[in-house]
Amino acid sequence: MKNIIVAQSGGPTTVINSSITGLILDALKCDTIDKVYGAFHGINGVLTDELLCFNDVNVKEIEYMKTTPSSALGSCRIKLNETHYPKIFETFEKYNIGMFFYAGGNDSMDTVDKLSKYAQENDIDVQFIGVPKTIDNDLFEIDHTPGFGSCAKFIVSSICEMNRDAIVYDKKTVTIIEVMGRDTGWIAASSGVCYNKEGVPDLIYVPENSFTLEQFEQDVKEVLTIKDSCFVVVSEGVKYPNGDFVAEVTDAQVDSFGHKRMGGVHSVLKHFISEKVDATVKSIEFGIQQRCSISSASLVDIEEAYTLGQNALKYALEGHTGIMSTLTRSDSSTYEPIYDFVDVSKVANNVKYVPADFFNDKGTNLSRKGRAYFLPLIQGEITVPTVDGVHRYSIISPNIKKRKLNS
Amino acid sequence: MKNIIVAQSGGPTTVINSSITGLILDALKCDTIDKVYGAFHGINGVLTDELLCFNDVNVKEIEYMKTTPSSALGSCRIKLNETHYPKIFETFEKYNIGMFFYAGGNDSMDTVDKLSKYAQENDIDVQFIGVPKTIDNDLFEIDHTPGFGSCAKFIVSSICEMNRDAIVYDKKTVTIIEVMGRDTGWIAASSGVCYNKEGVPDLIYVPENSFTLEQFEQDVKEVLTIKDSCFVVVSEGVKYPNGDFVAEVTDAQVDSFGHKRMGGVHSVLKHFISEKVDATVKSIEFGIQQRCSISSASLVDIEEAYTLGQNALKYALEGHTGIMSTLTRSDSSTYEPIYDFVDVSKVANNVKYVPADFFNDKGTNLSRKGRAYFLPLIQGEITVPTVDGVHRYSIISPNIKKRKLNS
Repeated sequence: MKNIIVAQSGGPTTVINSSITGLILDALKCDTIDKVYGAFHGINGVLTDELLCFNDVNVKEIEYMKTTPSSALGSCRIKLNETHYPKIFETFEKYNIGMFFYAGGNDSMDTVDKLSKYAQENDIDVQFIGVPKTIDNDLFEIDHTPGFGSCAKFIVSSICEMNRDAIVYDKKTVTIIEVMGRDTGWIAASSGVCYNKEGVPDLIYVPENSFTLEQFEQDVKEVLTIKDSCFVVVSEGVKYPNGDFVAEVTDAQVDSFGHKRMGGVHSVLKHFISEKVDATVKSIEFGIQQRCSISSASLVDIEEAYTLGQNALKYALEGHTGIMSTLTRSDSSTYEPIYDFVDVSKVANNVKYVPADFFNDKGTNLSRKGRAYFLPLIQGEITVPTVDGVHRYSIISPNIKKRKLNS
Repeated sequence: MKNIIVAQSGGPTTVINSSITGLILDALKCDTIDKVYGAFHGINGVLTDELLCFNDVNVKEIEYMKTTPSSALGSCRIKLNETHYPKIFETFEKYNIGMFFYAGGNDSMDTVDKLSKYAQENDIDVQFIGVPKTIDNDLFEIDHTPGFGSCAKFIVSSICEMNRDAIVYDKKTVTIIEVMGRDTGWIAASSGVCYNKEGVPDLIYVPENSFTLEQFEQDVKEVLTIKDSCFVVVSEGVKYPNGDFVAEVTDAQVDSFGHKRMGGVHSVLKHFISEKVDATVKSIEFGIQQRCSISSASLVDIEEAYTLGQNALKYALEGHTGIMSTLTRSDSSTYEPIYDFVDVSKVANNVKYVPADFFNDKGTNLSRKGRAYFLPLIQGEITVPTVDGVHRYSIISPNIKKRKLNS
């Protein structure tokens, strides 16, 4: 009987643990699988032989992972190259590994793609399966990514709350919220679903649509002629027509995948618009809570993530390799996810942008089509288990690495 | 039969609407009260004659106020002086007002104190009752203020979530969270209740305890010898031994009460410690979500706020004036609030600090006594009503001022 390894990679999300929880619990019950290992810090844990054996962990702690935010096994951001392969397959051989599951975004799917091809070319009997995740929602071959719905729900709940705060004083205000999303505007765009409820955000700016400071000034002034409060949501990756980021990347940090680390557009817009309008201007950058706020998680998201993890195992047991567990959306008028798998090479290293018809004519708020896409993804709330009013998370975390929970 | 006015003042909280909801719903059922008015933007609404008549509002919308964050009637920050009195009492006479209820912090209690004394001195038959609120928890004559428990619960939930994110990569990190609280450290201190659950925060800095950058450096380095991640919570008002704020108030903004607007200590600490330790340093300022995150509200807080509002009416009906509805804590081993009222002049313009014995010997985390104080205040979660996954708040907001909901 073979053993399996599960690992997590890239930026964490609120529900990435839900995906591996579904996978691990099913694997532990599976007759044809012996040991279920978790690799700490993604593929790094395979390279350094740092594994946790879930067979030795109290099942309650695995179940608690479902509502524990972020990556319980830790994460990594390394770009794999051929020099890594011998060590990886050495670990696989040592632990008699037949399947490797990687929960991550498009960089992680690149890893799955490379390793599965290498195994096939070298007649190595290890299957590689991707489990999708990213708050950015920019993966190809999937309707939407696990983690995105909870991120969107956090944003929507937060701006509804903050809008009620912004309007309490009898004066003009402009509130600028910067959200994540790298080169795409999915996260910012999703905030538009509360417009017909709470009347915010008034303006949404995404990298997919052209942006100029002159137009921004005009847009804000137009809102302030109608209302006292103007609420703006802007993507970190918003660009000028010449392609330059509005956020000046002052120290030009670049990660090992060549992605620029962004942030700061809220500050640029705040300083610009403060000079142009007679209003109190506040700007806020939503930080890492976008990807870890289990308090505001979407029930739909956390359950879909769980199922995608379960399905990854199912497809592997059917003999597939080099695939990613995925979902599409049925054509029916009520939202219904259709689960399937897809060749992982179609996913790796691609970026999916928000379609133009998701926006209204001005490009500053959602169209009906856009709202219809986002709304099902933020449905339902979850109850985070608590002890004494404090979240009760799983004890499984990268911190237990040295505690030798594994046998 | 007399009419009454309810108003809200100062910085909003998550539960200030719960207080006035309890008061208004009871008043609407009261045989000896005719009209129940709300003044928009605090005492300003009385000065400008902008009132909402709750008798004309759908009771469902009043009930929804209980779980609507921030001040549904709007707020103000004006320091009352004698030139305002004639206009205020003119409005009271015009609307046949017998009672005025003011939900607010110590500045608002100053207003209640002044107006009740003026009425008594001038034989004007209007009663003035204060309803406490402030996330800062710095009011005298009350065990803890409504709004504080929900603020604390937001902080505790957020740092538990963010800590799980901070530890995912296999490297040393320092996370610095700046929280509100003005001159007192109640909010920062409350974060210590999750230390024995999630092991964070490692270090808490409050204005009540002495702070030096040298000690900060030593504290952080000490934590990093034991753990890879150091989690710091710091009050905005933390000071050097000479009394200077650590946060440089670059533009020295001062509000009409002479309070300095603070912020920025997280940035000072981040830049300082980045030079001293070999770790990734992140710093975040928790913004206005501290006072409006209904998603993370404390059930104990929202219910106590409601009862304090109901009691304000009860004491007024008993004939009291110049008082504030309050609560103390019973001596029993299980937490139990004891409701009462207090002369508002004992509350106005005082500031309550965190006792020294709430901290451990080093002053950087809670003592057992401190934990025992804070823990009951964050108990229980609430379910925010939603429609299509979006919070359903009351339609009552400062924005309806011009829509003439009142007759």
